[in-house]
Amino acid sequence: MNTLKNDCNILIIGLGVMGGSYARALSKKGYCVRCITKNQKDIDYALANGMIREGSTEVEPALVQQADLIIFALYPHIFVDWVGQYQHLFRPGTLITDVTGVKGSIVSTVQEMLRPDVEFIAAHPMAGRESSGVEYSDDRVFQGANFIITPTERNSSEAIAVCREIGEVLGFARISQLSPEEHDRMIAFLSQLTHCIAVTLMTCNETPMMEQYSGDSFRDLTRIAKINDVMWSELFMLNRDALLEQMDAFADEFDRFRQMLKNGDSDGMRDVMKRATARRTLFDKPKN
Amino acid sequence: MNTLKNDCNILIIGLGVMGGSYARALSKKGYCVRCITKNQKDIDYALANGMIREGSTEVEPALVQQADLIIFALYPHIFVDWVGQYQHLFRPGTLITDVTGVKGSIVSTVQEMLRPDVEFIAAHPMAGRESSGVEYSDDRVFQGANFIITPTERNSSEAIAVCREIGEVLGFARISQLSPEEHDRMIAFLSQLTHCIAVTLMTCNETPMMEQYSGDSFRDLTRIAKINDVMWSELFMLNRDALLEQMDAFADEFDRFRQMLKNGDSDGMRDVMKRATARRTLFDKPKN
Repeated sequence: MNTLKNDCNILIIGLGVMGGSYARALSKKGYCVRCITKNQKDIDYALANGMIREGSTEVEPALVQQADLIIFALYPHIFVDWVGQYQHLFRPGTLITDVTGVKGSIVSTVQEMLRPDVEFIAAHPMAGRESSGVEYSDDRVFQGANFIITPTERNSSEAIAVCREIGEVLGFARISQLSPEEHDRMIAFLSQLTHCIAVTLMTCNETPMMEQYSGDSFRDLTRIAKINDVMWSELFMLNRDALLEQMDAFADEFDRFRQMLKNGDSDGMRDVMKRATARRTLFDKPKN
Repeated sequence: MNTLKNDCNILIIGLGVMGGSYARALSKKGYCVRCITKNQKDIDYALANGMIREGSTEVEPALVQQADLIIFALYPHIFVDWVGQYQHLFRPGTLITDVTGVKGSIVSTVQEMLRPDVEFIAAHPMAGRESSGVEYSDDRVFQGANFIITPTERNSSEAIAVCREIGEVLGFARISQLSPEEHDRMIAFLSQLTHCIAVTLMTCNETPMMEQYSGDSFRDLTRIAKINDVMWSELFMLNRDALLEQMDAFADEFDRFRQMLKNGDSDGMRDVMKRATARRTLFDKPKN
């Protein structure tokens, strides 16, 4: 598969919030999207909302074999197990991609076990919702968002190009490439550390009635404290060393700020705030 | 002043992002709003946008004397100095309120120095913008937001009632009362700690090009890292002990989570995540 043709058949495996968002976006663009997922009610929802052409709760060989492109939107270990168990069903030349939030261990594991006539090109859509389930899927989250492709030396330039097309079709504003290892270091900081902080902030002070006094800053910092504990604990464990490193860097910097406050060092605090203000402008959401 | 009559004259002192947002909301509701502020360009902007009837860069006695209600939207120490310097200009019976983010030291200082024929009732609108200046003012930030009144034993029930009316007229969804000390403990956690965290997160890892890989979670957690360093360093210093206590509680909880990750305690992490998820639903923005 060298390009994302209009008539290509796409199979999404796992119709949760992310698989569902892919399905919405791809169906709107006219692609033929099918799915395999655990619960019939999610298929019914997707059919009723025009997100897929058909779906099954079983791994039907015909569904797998007619796919030109298969997108895995499963928890990491389920993705790896699925490929191990069912890869004999893939048609030669099928392209596989994913949405997994950790790449180092997953990409090499899948690429090493995979049949040589099928290619896996990994990607991480940097967009999501804090709620789980296909009914929370929303392809508007891709607008203005970043899409990261993590190729290895096993990947062809054609597969990388198709993966870039997928990012474009989905509506991402910026598409870039990192090695799986660079990705994981980056994600430990940009995504995993932020979830650790949000969860900690939400649980470190349980004074009753506090919600009556909250402003937007607390709401913003804890939006992602609504978290899928099964998925995120798995992602954290798969990237443990990189995440611990980022947690330590954050804790050290936090303690430096605390010392400034304790010592009444207003100039020191203002200097940190000025650097934060200047650096934050880089992170404003890009325009599509 | 027992009630916020339609024909009452309101004077806003300090036309920044918060004073400007008050001016917009109150003028839309038909009140006669005047202002005293430092820069003529801010007055020109407010006049051009229908936010005020008139304004001055000087403390004109006539402006102060015709006010039934004066709203101070200044940095804390400037507010205190202003009252000390100009309170002889107040008309007897004038009601004073403010928007200051710290209450403990400010409320008692102002109430103690204030003429006995003028009353100061303190309030904290829990809404804001991360940018400074009247051109960023926006009264829509009050929708769904919390408004906290912090009366003391020096306040009359009439003044508290008028302050509540102000919160309602501005459009706040929930209006509540706390003592200045309770307010400061609450705010140390809900607002000041969150700003410390955002600033730390923004400065603890300065790897170049990171913005190309960022998702919404990092953007949300650092929105308030764009910060008015003059104001916030002052607010932190005015509430130092309470803030240090909250920083320590956060750092301890963060370290507990780090230990769970280090020890591979997925169940422990999941338990924290579940508690965070359940508790976060309390903080969803109330509907007006």
